[in-house]
Amino acid sequence: MIKVGIIGVGTVGTSVAQILKDNADVISARAGTDIVVKSGVVKNLNKDRGLGIVLTDNVDDILNDSKIDIVVELMGGVDEPFEVVKKALKSGKAVVTANKALLAYHRYELAELAKDIAFEYEASVAGGIPIINALRDGLSANHIESIMGIMNGTCNYMMTKMTNEGVAYDTILKESQELGYAEADPSFDVGGYDAAHKLLILASIAYGIDAKPEDILIEGIENVTQDDIAFAKEFGYAIKLLGIAKKDGNEVELRVHACLIKQEEMIAKIDGVMNGISVIGDKVGETLYYGPGAGGDATASAVVANIIDIARSGKSTPMLGFDKPMEANLTLKPTADIKSKYYLRVNVSDKAGVLAKITKIFEDNNISVETMLQRPSSEDSANLLISTHTAIESDIQNMIKEIEVLDFVNSTPVMIRIV
Amino acid sequence: MIKVGIIGVGTVGTSVAQILKDNADVISARAGTDIVVKSGVVKNLNKDRGLGIVLTDNVDDILNDSKIDIVVELMGGVDEPFEVVKKALKSGKAVVTANKALLAYHRYELAELAKDIAFEYEASVAGGIPIINALRDGLSANHIESIMGIMNGTCNYMMTKMTNEGVAYDTILKESQELGYAEADPSFDVGGYDAAHKLLILASIAYGIDAKPEDILIEGIENVTQDDIAFAKEFGYAIKLLGIAKKDGNEVELRVHACLIKQEEMIAKIDGVMNGISVIGDKVGETLYYGPGAGGDATASAVVANIIDIARSGKSTPMLGFDKPMEANLTLKPTADIKSKYYLRVNVSDKAGVLAKITKIFEDNNISVETMLQRPSSEDSANLLISTHTAIESDIQNMIKEIEVLDFVNSTPVMIRIV
Repeated sequence: MIKVGIIGVGTVGTSVAQILKDNADVISARAGTDIVVKSGVVKNLNKDRGLGIVLTDNVDDILNDSKIDIVVELMGGVDEPFEVVKKALKSGKAVVTANKALLAYHRYELAELAKDIAFEYEASVAGGIPIINALRDGLSANHIESIMGIMNGTCNYMMTKMTNEGVAYDTILKESQELGYAEADPSFDVGGYDAAHKLLILASIAYGIDAKPEDILIEGIENVTQDDIAFAKEFGYAIKLLGIAKKDGNEVELRVHACLIKQEEMIAKIDGVMNGISVIGDKVGETLYYGPGAGGDATASAVVANIIDIARSGKSTPMLGFDKPMEANLTLKPTADIKSKYYLRVNVSDKAGVLAKITKIFEDNNISVETMLQRPSSEDSANLLISTHTAIESDIQNMIKEIEVLDFVNSTPVMIRIV
Repeated sequence: MIKVGIIGVGTVGTSVAQILKDNADVISARAGTDIVVKSGVVKNLNKDRGLGIVLTDNVDDILNDSKIDIVVELMGGVDEPFEVVKKALKSGKAVVTANKALLAYHRYELAELAKDIAFEYEASVAGGIPIINALRDGLSANHIESIMGIMNGTCNYMMTKMTNEGVAYDTILKESQELGYAEADPSFDVGGYDAAHKLLILASIAYGIDAKPEDILIEGIENVTQDDIAFAKEFGYAIKLLGIAKKDGNEVELRVHACLIKQEEMIAKIDGVMNGISVIGDKVGETLYYGPGAGGDATASAVVANIIDIARSGKSTPMLGFDKPMEANLTLKPTADIKSKYYLRVNVSDKAGVLAKITKIFEDNNISVETMLQRPSSEDSANLLISTHTAIESDIQNMIKEIEVLDFVNSTPVMIRIV
């Protein structure tokens, strides 16, 4: 019998305990052994969770319990769980976590500590979708060319609603908060940080590349308006917040930002709170994984799958999927060097000569315009909606700086990359 | 170093050897060891494959080679590969196969023989999509409620073309044959048998249920016409050939047939030769897996992933995902008991009273009509296009028998199930 200790019995922790009970028949048949929760750590011992497991408010009660085989870490945060998980691994306990922030900062140290013991983290990326399983095992024969994913359900819900119902960003943000999809402080989701944590984890498995959130391009969806959505629709695009990892020669791009993406692409068809991740391998081509990226039961489904794996075979796969460096010389591409097509929205005073001046600045920066629309935004101002051919990020950034100081430009231009 | 012998160096076998060479850097890093092809079995020794591996036309040269660790079976067929694979397992060699027919007939015997040695078969279902990995490992915490999949790229290509370009079945079949998507004798694909083999494999992992192709409902796409596609479009459906496994109480439905499916469903959005499989688990909800279901490199990607898994950890998971029976008392639901909504196309002579007589037969069989369209099909005949509320398969079949003998009915009614 395998005994589990859960550190952090909140929504996901409760679901983990519940699934191990509810589905004990299939779990025991698949794991080849019974799996039970021996105890759980909570902050507030007075709250009854109705789970019938021993509760404590002391982490050491689990870490020092020699009868516990697997520690499930669901505390949240970075530093404290890192200490807890290190202790667990050092005392020979396998660890399962759903903590993406912990991994975004400490995955390589953890891989080192978990050389001979299982450390699993399927639930840390895209909730119930077994994407880590797919990338680490199912696609292991491939050089990964790119990963492109809707990794944040809150943002996807908001963009879908803005697209389908024409509502404003602020309106849908408020609704998302009321529905519990967005936090009171939504910046972790809408600012792209949550997706970035997940992207870094996947990029390590795909490329063995080390980077922290601070090292990569992270933008959110806060500046997307109905003007942008109308432009997207007119030219056959959807707007999505994507996490993108892409190999280009010996460099890997890692970036999170809103994207215009062609409506025919499978990933553009993923709507609502759902997540979806497209992976292109050099041999297999494109595969895509779709499902719920959050929620107690969906996340716990992935945690319990990891527990079953460990019960079956202990440690069967290196934590990040490789035992020695994979592809020689892969380095992180500097953000300034990224190449992309771009969409820009420039709000200008509606005066003669404006268009000529703007297009001159594009030309001076070697940026070639693909399409341009002008739409009135008030009585005396207009939005210029412009898409470019492939350009270099640094050129675009320089051009935006030149444009935003012009006297007839009313606000900082909004830029969305086209993929 | 792990040494592989490939039995059957055709398209997929050649790709397997090529991937192991081309991607040796990532494969060795992920597997923790080098993996090389030691030899291959071919029928015709005179054909140069340019792979630089030892070729033989004698299977025993591989089976008796004590230096070979993993046998890759890519012979095709059922009886001969079964004998070969049994010998390999008995001599302590791990086996990887892409052979769905072998598994459709012998998977339980093989699971018994492979209790202590790895037998892997990711490539047997949906080519490059790691669906077996997902179902057996990633979703292992769930009771599986249903599996619904586009498991045959040929059929999906044909249905997509018929839908988007309005071409007739025979025209697109001919084109598919010219493109190499369909065989000279296309019945294995368009008749649903290929999808049925794959469905049976997935159903075993999900439910532990044993069935052979002969035991389940298998229909193809041969009778779908532009009339049906027009009806589907009008009511918001796509037409797809789906393999369906569904639990209903203690019974499991297994069936392959053309389906009308709502266009909003993710699986309805999968077009062209691509495959996609939707799995609903009781805890995780719906997840979906999309990618190439055929092709040398995509299929070989899955074969090599299995080889890497075995190199990493030998046998880490029971072959079908469970060590003892899973859910008590699950039995195969008789086809006659299936409940579904139905669509029927009835070609009738355009005479007074016809509609009344047809609708009376529906009523007599307790089948409730949801929508009905009448469309002229020639000067003196018409098609009745009818969808029903939920009904029982045996009632529908009886009703079709009553309808087809009526003197004003010109041919056997065509029925497509609605999911």
